[in-house]
Amino acid sequence: MPEVSRRGESMTQSPIRSLIPYARKAKSDGTHVYHLNIGQPDIETPKQALASLKSYDSKIVGYGNSEGVESLRETVKNYYCEHVSEISVEDIYVTTGASEAISFALFSCFDEGAEIIIPEPFYANYIGFSHVSGVSLVPVTSSIKDGFGLPDTSDIVARITPKTKAIFLCNPSNPTGNLYTKRELSAIAELVKKHDLFLIVDEVYREFCYDAEFYSVLKIDGIEDHVLVIDSISKVFSSCGSRIGFIVTRNEKLRNSILKYAQLRLCPPMIGQHMAESCFSDRKAYLDTVRAEYNSRRLYLYNRLSKMEGVKCYLPKAAFYIMTELPVDDTDHFCKWLLSDYRHNGATIMMAPGQGFYLSPDIGVKQVRIAFVLGLEPLGIAMDILENALKEYQGHTQHVAAIAQNLP
Amino acid sequence: MPEVSRRGESMTQSPIRSLIPYARKAKSDGTHVYHLNIGQPDIETPKQALASLKSYDSKIVGYGNSEGVESLRETVKNYYCEHVSEISVEDIYVTTGASEAISFALFSCFDEGAEIIIPEPFYANYIGFSHVSGVSLVPVTSSIKDGFGLPDTSDIVARITPKTKAIFLCNPSNPTGNLYTKRELSAIAELVKKHDLFLIVDEVYREFCYDAEFYSVLKIDGIEDHVLVIDSISKVFSSCGSRIGFIVTRNEKLRNSILKYAQLRLCPPMIGQHMAESCFSDRKAYLDTVRAEYNSRRLYLYNRLSKMEGVKCYLPKAAFYIMTELPVDDTDHFCKWLLSDYRHNGATIMMAPGQGFYLSPDIGVKQVRIAFVLGLEPLGIAMDILENALKEYQGHTQHVAAIAQNLP
Repeated sequence: MPEVSRRGESMTQSPIRSLIPYARKAKSDGTHVYHLNIGQPDIETPKQALASLKSYDSKIVGYGNSEGVESLRETVKNYYCEHVSEISVEDIYVTTGASEAISFALFSCFDEGAEIIIPEPFYANYIGFSHVSGVSLVPVTSSIKDGFGLPDTSDIVARITPKTKAIFLCNPSNPTGNLYTKRELSAIAELVKKHDLFLIVDEVYREFCYDAEFYSVLKIDGIEDHVLVIDSISKVFSSCGSRIGFIVTRNEKLRNSILKYAQLRLCPPMIGQHMAESCFSDRKAYLDTVRAEYNSRRLYLYNRLSKMEGVKCYLPKAAFYIMTELPVDDTDHFCKWLLSDYRHNGATIMMAPGQGFYLSPDIGVKQVRIAFVLGLEPLGIAMDILENALKEYQGHTQHVAAIAQNLP
Repeated sequence: MPEVSRRGESMTQSPIRSLIPYARKAKSDGTHVYHLNIGQPDIETPKQALASLKSYDSKIVGYGNSEGVESLRETVKNYYCEHVSEISVEDIYVTTGASEAISFALFSCFDEGAEIIIPEPFYANYIGFSHVSGVSLVPVTSSIKDGFGLPDTSDIVARITPKTKAIFLCNPSNPTGNLYTKRELSAIAELVKKHDLFLIVDEVYREFCYDAEFYSVLKIDGIEDHVLVIDSISKVFSSCGSRIGFIVTRNEKLRNSILKYAQLRLCPPMIGQHMAESCFSDRKAYLDTVRAEYNSRRLYLYNRLSKMEGVKCYLPKAAFYIMTELPVDDTDHFCKWLLSDYRHNGATIMMAPGQGFYLSPDIGVKQVRIAFVLGLEPLGIAMDILENALKEYQGHTQHVAAIAQNLP
């Protein structure tokens, strides 16, 4: 039997994935599992987008341009010019989800061995993409104390080596819900100019900001050739399954490289692109409603968490996540225990253990990411479950500790 | 300005792509261009598949399983058991087109530096995928004399080194229309067993065989763990834009690696998967009609080409391509000349120059790939254009040669 590749074998799976068998088992036993673990919104896809499928009138679902369908690129350009920053149609490539956008960005910007500085905690799948492309993520740890704001610039500078080729941000942040200020981003802009780095920013949660206005790195003058933005309709228009994302960059040389990777996979999904175009029409009322819904969940969640004994939290400024610290030794064990042992009125909750969002060892071990992708009522039940579980688990850990102490 | 990656810069574009600006220019001048250059069928997508879009009733276009939607995998399993070979649902992963299937296969089977033996001419994009994954394609040249049948096994064995990890076939073949016999494939099976190699076979044209029956490597006993098949609905159901492909392998360890790459990109396009499922229902009448249509084009094309002076051709056994040899010095120049200089009743043709399908230098320079993705009437006009152009170009090349001789 031929050996499979070492790179495939050595690729680590997201720690969230390791909980899936526990969740399946719980469900097969008749337990209701409240999913707070994934970024799959419960919000409906815009009606006009779903309706657009009914009016799809091509007789042949054929290939389109590798760069993306022209009319969609035009639509996205108009959206950017109105809400983000002045860009041209040529600056936009449509990708198969933000996932492909990240992959294209890493292959086009970096050779193997390049180092990318990234604030942690960060979206766990960045680790997989860096593994595939052979680049190294160099983490700078942010702190729950200030809601995971940008670490000191000096901490970033301290990590710059001759191999450093970029700074990578997620703004607004998954998993923390942090939103970078104009001042913070301007400081980063100075760094990338000074050290001649790329600045890659994942802005897929851009539309969900609650207390402050979103500020895009595309607005900063003088770093046009440094900036590459990753975008997607997945979260904004609750269309994760359409697999439609975007790369936006004004760097022509970079676009020429990206285009080659795009041509290799021929084109992004055509029906998804057709649907995406409809998402952007009549978007204001839809986005206002969705934003208000997430905001009420955010306030409720913060209110509940901050009243739980020993729980450390903060009010996330954006996106639909909070990274909270629980009074347990290891959230990976706690999350497994919730799925395998704990039931509250026949139900339990699934959360994402914090460690998977960090590269530095032993950080985040008490944290969990909670996605508020449930309405207020199920979210309320989920918080009841968490509150009660924490009380019971306290005893459980002491019990485990007691047994451990009595071992010979 | 930061430097883009060397790997992105060094990636070569398909030579077909280099003709695109010439074609655009011709069209902008009002010339009708008959496209014989790409594998985009003019055949309609099955009606029930297009109708399935109208009955899509999810309120949220959410993520699905990374392995693909269960009901689609079940459908594909039933198709395989009926038409290809006995397989299980677990053996099938849905991918974003055959493109992604190829990429996952290369990353999961091979580490960088691995060598893969492949008969040339082959689908030009394999070069790009090998570049991205850092593996080397080692070509074994097949010949137009026997319609590009499998080269002698001794030629393959001669290329096996300690780095050789696989043999890669396209069966039926793009660009040649060749179909491997059971005997040829059994010989290959012996080789992969003896040398412990993977056997990767791209079978996306499986449904279009005209003179002989298709035989899949999945049918061969004793190489279950060696075989990985690449498949897609793009050509079979004329649904290139849906971006739905498949990986089929019974090697569990390999599937475990592939799954990690699949999880990284979350899931394949959900609406495309919904459509794909409908493609497989009521397929017999549709495929019989399409096969008959391609067959009549194949016979017509062969008939026309074999009557043109100096043109070498053969009757392709399968797929919808023929790789033919023209009485010109360099088909790349000839194809450009057709687009830029030659007009026949205000029209011209676009073909794919042969060299792009070879890795060995200076082979295929007189060949072109013609895709019969036009109906008999436009195909007839396209052949008139080719016939007349060859007569005129003969003079043209002599003229160019005469000028060249008079240079100091």
